[in-house]
Amino acid sequence: MPEPLAPGATIGILGGGQLGRMLAEAAARLGFRCLVYCEKADAPAFAVAAGHQIGGYDDTADVAGFAARCDILTYEFESIPAVSVQAASGKTPVFPGVRALEVIQDRLSEKDFLNSLGIATAPYAAVSGLADLKAAAGGTGLPAILKTRRFGYDGKGQARIDASSRFRDALDEIAGAPAILEGFVNFEKEISVVAMRGRTGEFGCYDIVENRHENHILAESRVPAGVRQGTGAEAADIARKIAAALDYVGVLAVELFYSPGEPLLVNELAPRVHNSGHWTLDACLCDQFENHIRAIAGWPLGPTLRHSDAVMTNLIGPDAGRWRELAAKDDVALHLYGKREARPGRKMGHFTRISPRKP
Amino acid sequence: MPEPLAPGATIGILGGGQLGRMLAEAAARLGFRCLVYCEKADAPAFAVAAGHQIGGYDDTADVAGFAARCDILTYEFESIPAVSVQAASGKTPVFPGVRALEVIQDRLSEKDFLNSLGIATAPYAAVSGLADLKAAAGGTGLPAILKTRRFGYDGKGQARIDASSRFRDALDEIAGAPAILEGFVNFEKEISVVAMRGRTGEFGCYDIVENRHENHILAESRVPAGVRQGTGAEAADIARKIAAALDYVGVLAVELFYSPGEPLLVNELAPRVHNSGHWTLDACLCDQFENHIRAIAGWPLGPTLRHSDAVMTNLIGPDAGRWRELAAKDDVALHLYGKREARPGRKMGHFTRISPRKP
Repeated sequence: MPEPLAPGATIGILGGGQLGRMLAEAAARLGFRCLVYCEKADAPAFAVAAGHQIGGYDDTADVAGFAARCDILTYEFESIPAVSVQAASGKTPVFPGVRALEVIQDRLSEKDFLNSLGIATAPYAAVSGLADLKAAAGGTGLPAILKTRRFGYDGKGQARIDASSRFRDALDEIAGAPAILEGFVNFEKEISVVAMRGRTGEFGCYDIVENRHENHILAESRVPAGVRQGTGAEAADIARKIAAALDYVGVLAVELFYSPGEPLLVNELAPRVHNSGHWTLDACLCDQFENHIRAIAGWPLGPTLRHSDAVMTNLIGPDAGRWRELAAKDDVALHLYGKREARPGRKMGHFTRISPRKP
Repeated sequence: MPEPLAPGATIGILGGGQLGRMLAEAAARLGFRCLVYCEKADAPAFAVAAGHQIGGYDDTADVAGFAARCDILTYEFESIPAVSVQAASGKTPVFPGVRALEVIQDRLSEKDFLNSLGIATAPYAAVSGLADLKAAAGGTGLPAILKTRRFGYDGKGQARIDASSRFRDALDEIAGAPAILEGFVNFEKEISVVAMRGRTGEFGCYDIVENRHENHILAESRVPAGVRQGTGAEAADIARKIAAALDYVGVLAVELFYSPGEPLLVNELAPRVHNSGHWTLDACLCDQFENHIRAIAGWPLGPTLRHSDAVMTNLIGPDAGRWRELAAKDDVALHLYGKREARPGRKMGHFTRISPRKP
């Protein structure tokens, strides 16, 4: 059983975007010193950290050198090469561990892993060329979605296939990368659960939220979710099973498809703090960022109880211009990430509207 | 009427202690870039700011140079020399303004100012030597407290006088500095109100809190305060009057003496965010640090409503060793300031216990 990391110790974060930024803020609040590693010179997280290092994520030597400066290391996103995390692990403890990362980085291994635990997913099959794709479509039916096995997020690396005439184009769109074909699922809502597991196996999770996407990007998360009773416990069970099987340490987000009268289906996993957990900053005593830091530092997990109902809305691209209007609202907490350019599709900030918790 | 400062602008903070640190965190959350000026190389606020500058507070040229790097400037403590703030004002707007600082820096001018507004204080008189002291004691009675006019905090620069035989010793204890003699007031409780005023005159304040001191240092703040109904409105009126008369911009804390059936007496003012407002971090949607940033940036003030009842306890010196025990509590938010040495009397952190708001 590990000694908890004492305040004053140094926590390293690979990735300097808004998730790294909010992790660094949480770590500082607990008295830790934070260093951030990022390939961009103006990374948002640099502005709230004690120090930083600019370097490529695939530069294993550089990542290992950074790791050597830290008492423990974590990361803000799942696209970091597993070899780099492996190299870092030789220098300092890294959480979540490389095994969880490897499983989740590959949509095929992720789905195989879930099904091996008896956790339901959409129908899927591996695709590495036209012959595979034809056979896979026979199993999943059409429409279906072709998704690269690696490095997809916010709808990138995906091609929708409505008819077999689209097979070739779809393969072109993903540039022939190793892929899976995923069958369509009829669902009423997408929900997610932000869970966490400590270094001694302790498990916790926040209330499930209901998510709404626009253009494949999360637009809004709402808690409580409008779902049948028992869904929260069902989602928590799924997350607990996954986290235990991966010997996971840190925050883990599970996206799920919900339909009344049907079992939940897992859509995907994120081995990190998650956009659909940002509401916890304003509606809980201990937010997801602090809970991630607590988990990796070997501290007791913090309370996940929420004191308020909440709706979190992302500010994407030009939406960031709404700050003046939002700052004037009495029930809104505004969070801006310090990004200079409001490019289309870029997450610039978010805001959370809270209201007294309904019984 | 000023344009509100847009996200991305640079806010400078004079002072790198825990107040500067929590101000920097709040500024970052609103998308501002923060620079911190402090005389210490390992100032707690440096670890959460985009940049910093090490320099003396009385080095007017250096402070002015720092100010020139910022779009607006503020400070975390009232002991900064007014000449330095004056010099900074020539380079960039400074809030709160130098006039408020000058009035509050001097206990005599502070009390004269309050009384000129019809706001009651303890009886007091100026003291610059033995003759004054004797005369003053005639007015206030004994016991009384001799306090230096400038640069006292947490009980420093004070000498209690129980009998006239103590006059000479008391003057020695404050090294003959210009002082006031303050009469003792019988009071039941010390309360405080954390108020804020925006650049357009908008006023807001949090619920009053009840404070308990130990060894002249704030030990605990509790909200709601156990006082007669109407006390909150009375305190808010006093704060509003003071802030308006000083044309104040930012957060202003007013410490008051409360006795049932008596009017409130003002003990002292702090032209800054205040230890007795730390509970707002965990029990309000918008905390005192964010409200200070909003006020000085010309933004609308944020909501001051609290969603929970709260008790804030300071971690002084070796108390910081309690982090393990506190981290395990379900109703506690822990805040550590990243200070290395837990010297006696040093504020190392605080924790807030919250509970559902009682109707």
